[in-house]
Amino acid sequence: MTLMGKTLTPEQLQALVERLDREARQAGEWGQVASYIPELACVDPRQFAISVCTVDGQEFHAGDAGKAFSIQSVSKVFTLALALGRHGDGLWQRVGREPSGRAFNSIVQLEVEDGIPRNPFINAGAIVTTDAVLGCNAPRDTLGEILRFLREASGDEDIHINEQVARSEHATGDRNFSLAYFLRSCGNLTNDCDRVLGTYFHHCAIEMSTAQLARATRFLCGGFEGQRMIGLERVRAINALMMTCGHYDGSGDFAYRVGFPGKSGVGGGIMAVVPNVASIAVWSPGLDRYGNSLKGTAALEGLSKATGWSVFA
Amino acid sequence: MTLMGKTLTPEQLQALVERLDREARQAGEWGQVASYIPELACVDPRQFAISVCTVDGQEFHAGDAGKAFSIQSVSKVFTLALALGRHGDGLWQRVGREPSGRAFNSIVQLEVEDGIPRNPFINAGAIVTTDAVLGCNAPRDTLGEILRFLREASGDEDIHINEQVARSEHATGDRNFSLAYFLRSCGNLTNDCDRVLGTYFHHCAIEMSTAQLARATRFLCGGFEGQRMIGLERVRAINALMMTCGHYDGSGDFAYRVGFPGKSGVGGGIMAVVPNVASIAVWSPGLDRYGNSLKGTAALEGLSKATGWSVFA
Amino acid sequence: MTLMGKTLTPEQLQALVERLDREARQAGEWGQVASYIPELACVDPRQFAISVCTVDGQEFHAGDAGKAFSIQSVSKVFTLALALGRHGDGLWQRVGREPSGRAFNSIVQLEVEDGIPRNPFINAGAIVTTDAVLGCNAPRDTLGEILRFLREASGDEDIHINEQVARSEHATGDRNFSLAYFLRSCGNLTNDCDRVLGTYFHHCAIEMSTAQLARATRFLCGGFEGQRMIGLERVRAINALMMTCGHYDGSGDFAYRVGFPGKSGVGGGIMAVVPNVASIAVWSPGLDRYGNSLKGTAALEGLSKATGWSVFA
Amino acid sequence: MTLMGKTLTPEQLQALVERLDREARQAGEWGQVASYIPELACVDPRQFAISVCTVDGQEFHAGDAGKAFSIQSVSKVFTLALALGRHGDGLWQRVGREPSGRAFNSIVQLEVEDGIPRNPFINAGAIVTTDAVLGCNAPRDTLGEILRFLREASGDEDIHINEQVARSEHATGDRNFSLAYFLRSCGNLTNDCDRVLGTYFHHCAIEMSTAQLARATRFLCGGFEGQRMIGLERVRAINALMMTCGHYDGSGDFAYRVGFPGKSGVGGGIMAVVPNVASIAVWSPGLDRYGNSLKGTAALEGLSKATGWSVFA
Repeated sequence: MTLMGKTLTPEQLQALVERLDREARQAGEWGQVASYIPELACVDPRQFAISVCTVDGQEFHAGDAGKAFSIQSVSKVFTLALALGRHGDGLWQRVGREPSGRAFNSIVQLEVEDGIPRNPFINAGAIVTTDAVLGCNAPRDTLGEILRFLREASGDEDIHINEQVARSEHATGDRNFSLAYFLRSCGNLTNDCDRVLGTYFHHCAIEMSTAQLARATRFLCGGFEGQRMIGLERVRAINALMMTCGHYDGSGDFAYRVGFPGKSGVGGGIMAVVPNVASIAVWSPGLDRYGNSLKGTAALEGLSKATGWSVFA
Repeated sequence: MTLMGKTLTPEQLQALVERLDREARQAGEWGQVASYIPELACVDPRQFAISVCTVDGQEFHAGDAGKAFSIQSVSKVFTLALALGRHGDGLWQRVGREPSGRAFNSIVQLEVEDGIPRNPFINAGAIVTTDAVLGCNAPRDTLGEILRFLREASGDEDIHINEQVARSEHATGDRNFSLAYFLRSCGNLTNDCDRVLGTYFHHCAIEMSTAQLARATRFLCGGFEGQRMIGLERVRAINALMMTCGHYDGSGDFAYRVGFPGKSGVGGGIMAVVPNVASIAVWSPGLDRYGNSLKGTAALEGLSKATGWSVFA
Repeated sequence: MTLMGKTLTPEQLQALVERLDREARQAGEWGQVASYIPELACVDPRQFAISVCTVDGQEFHAGDAGKAFSIQSVSKVFTLALALGRHGDGLWQRVGREPSGRAFNSIVQLEVEDGIPRNPFINAGAIVTTDAVLGCNAPRDTLGEILRFLREASGDEDIHINEQVARSEHATGDRNFSLAYFLRSCGNLTNDCDRVLGTYFHHCAIEMSTAQLARATRFLCGGFEGQRMIGLERVRAINALMMTCGHYDGSGDFAYRVGFPGKSGVGGGIMAVVPNVASIAVWSPGLDRYGNSLKGTAALEGLSKATGWSVFA
Repeated sequence: MTLMGKTLTPEQLQALVERLDREARQAGEWGQVASYIPELACVDPRQFAISVCTVDGQEFHAGDAGKAFSIQSVSKVFTLALALGRHGDGLWQRVGREPSGRAFNSIVQLEVEDGIPRNPFINAGAIVTTDAVLGCNAPRDTLGEILRFLREASGDEDIHINEQVARSEHATGDRNFSLAYFLRSCGNLTNDCDRVLGTYFHHCAIEMSTAQLARATRFLCGGFEGQRMIGLERVRAINALMMTCGHYDGSGDFAYRVGFPGKSGVGGGIMAVVPNVASIAVWSPGLDRYGNSLKGTAALEGLSKATGWSVFA
């Protein structure tokens, strides 16, 4: 299925991303950066980047588009793609596909629903997905696989894990350990908690620029013939999950304001997909109260308004 | 934005809806009809209908497409459209835009979130929306307005309220009264509970055929130039809400399986929108465990697979 | 079973209640009076009363012990006694005997536990108890029965319902209507909501002084031979329920600090029982955050400390 | 305060415990033994023991009163006594005193109330209490202190930890690890999780007979002059907590049926206190649905009925 908005010339699109960058830097408050680890707490909130890759192979960048940031939960989309590749629909025995109606790190739902996380994008669900990708492999090999996927998707070998971030995540990861032990007590974790969370903290500590992330997101566009890394049915599945669950308890609001699927990370990055049209990455470290990038979301809303890109008409 | 799947000839589309009708009647179980009022409990579950209206003005019907059924919660979409028309974004002061993660008639969330329903499609949210449409008007006038909207949208004057159903809803409506009084105790109801629920029960008791409902849904397609009843921005807003919240706690699953927005009713009807392409109505009275039509959902999934209609690629 | 603390002379006990009255009037803040109806909101918080009736027939009063106040939820103990008298242990099919862990008017638990209130002292439980006492009788007759019970227990005909308070309760009773309709939707209400709540609001609007209330509470002491209105087993049952559930989500704290059973009302009254020793009533309209009398609870704690009256050693 | 039921001769009391033992072995079902570790799962459910120590120094035993069993959560009472001894009321900054309204191992409440467990007898609360007793000491020293307390209280040196049980608890302790990590993520654990849970699992693995446990419980009777290990005020405090919180979500029912404070363990033991009268231990490994000994509770109810021992009149 092809989806097209207004016809925009390359010049118009480049001017648009530059305008969005300018507006982001002018408008009011930047939001609060994540403060639970020093590496994120020390990031200057007054940064912004946007990158757009259209299905016909053009790219448009503005702001700090070459600067690497911690992708954090954005990585959950890639591990989900790998987990689906390995287990297919069997994965849905272990994790649901419904919005949670709760915060990203809530444990309440796990108790009520016997250890089946509501979706793969809340922390508990991503821990299960990581366990599913791990299987019997060594964490090192699994992380290698994730990195290879990202490098191939973005066509860029220069994508790495920040070991210092991974260590800090581990040192402050009590809540995630609580989730992992709960999952294990329900029989929904095959590896031990240390092994799963070690892998989880590392793939959350991958660093990318918006330029790299927008390119890496092309595999979800559906329109890049010849370069499909996963089948169309799976592309649709992942986009549907990002639409309904990609922004935690702010997913409905994101769908309403932006109108196409996306996944945010606590590092301030958001990857987004306009199916058959473009892949997008934005970054601004300041967060709103749900833990989603404040300026990043606003920029995506502005982009949607200006281009007419929306899956909803 | 235009969205197009595979190119299908009218003959192919007609053959497709006929195949879906045939398959629905052949495949296994029909689900359970709603049993809380006699008028729904007595409906024969072994019925099915499908109607598709494409943006270029063609129509395709199969099964019991001319038979009227109780649209129930499907009516919430139309009252939402009217409430947004009257109050604009001010409506979002009184009701949220997030999936609830709970059953359609749950009161738990209301207590936790101080009387602000999570979205306009769970019962509590629709009661608030009905109150917003009512304002200071008489229920009779408001119901007239809703009917006029539906008749104009469908181009069909023969759409009516089943008074007997409305009376039965009222007689068994204790749970809805509980929700309404709770909302009122939180200051989120301007009319008294009887007045609001009287109106609510009546608009839920509207009867339509899938042919009428598919036509009435065209106003959400975005592509019917010259006949737009509401602005494009509002079309997108309502479609986004249907996508994330239209099937209660089965919304994520519907998005995953079907791939375009829809709203179900406990009478077994579903209205659905393929933006810029088609409006659809299906009906089969047997429900799944979330209260959504079992065969209706399956048929929409089959339609999506066969046509490639999906907003997600 | 007999229970005796320190041996105190009548003079010492009288001096003690006078000291408690004095200290109540000296110490810091009085708490907030209930504000949801004008009749309670207008009460001067700077009032205090205490009355003690020992099993040997002596009485000790201090402060405003002759001044009538709205007993509110304290009345739930008397309707429970009547409901148990009528239905015996069959009552426990409809209401539990466990602390709720939630606020007095929470509806969350009702949904989770299918309309069975956790205990007879939270609002939902008292509404069920009222329905059980009502049975097929007229509300007027039932209220007459409750008043007769109170008048007989206290040996005082001058106990009445404040009709104005009952009307105000009704006018602001949306939350209680929400609870009642919820119970009815679960099949746990045999009368219609208006009838039950009409009765409920009226028995909550009974007015008594601490002198009257302390006397009326003697039937729970267990040691008043010859005047037992209910059997010993039932006395123990009601006292056990007051101990574990009598102060809503502050019941554990009350047991810890005071050490004998009691039941509070939002009018600022508390009835309390030292089994085999004394019945007690205190009143001070200012409330703590759980809706229990601030000064009243403190005075009972002081009384317990000074006398050694505690069921826990 | 002295509390006395019917006057029973020693012969009558001995005959009573023997009757209770006989009835326990005759009556219907024994309940299910805990199955989460092999050491408990292999216990023959068809066992029963009862021991009563009166404040005047007499003892009455029946059944398997000399057979050691795993005291499990009964140990929480002794660690609470030690924690209060060390921290006094400061402990209540870290743990509440209210019934939880939930299962012993629920994590829901922790999230809702920011990591403050509702009381010291649910698992999360006991983990905090263990952490408070540990302080900066070595687990070995702390366990020595707990054992010394128990040996002194019971006057019996032959009380030990079953290391094999402790190891099995550790191996299957994922849910407790989940609770501990959650507490730690909220800043309510000063030691690391392994250290606290290592200590916790060990004190839960203490083994005692009902004869030993009834003697060890005398310190909570309040009437053993000269042998008081803790002050009267603390005795009352602990008894109050056992009354409102000692049987998890069956505490209200226990208070209603038995009428004096007690604390159960998943090994089938219950310690109970009739203040100023007697300390009691019962044991029968089969559990009811709340995890409390089925026959043990029934025997305590029978004892209460036969003796009139009740704090409630």
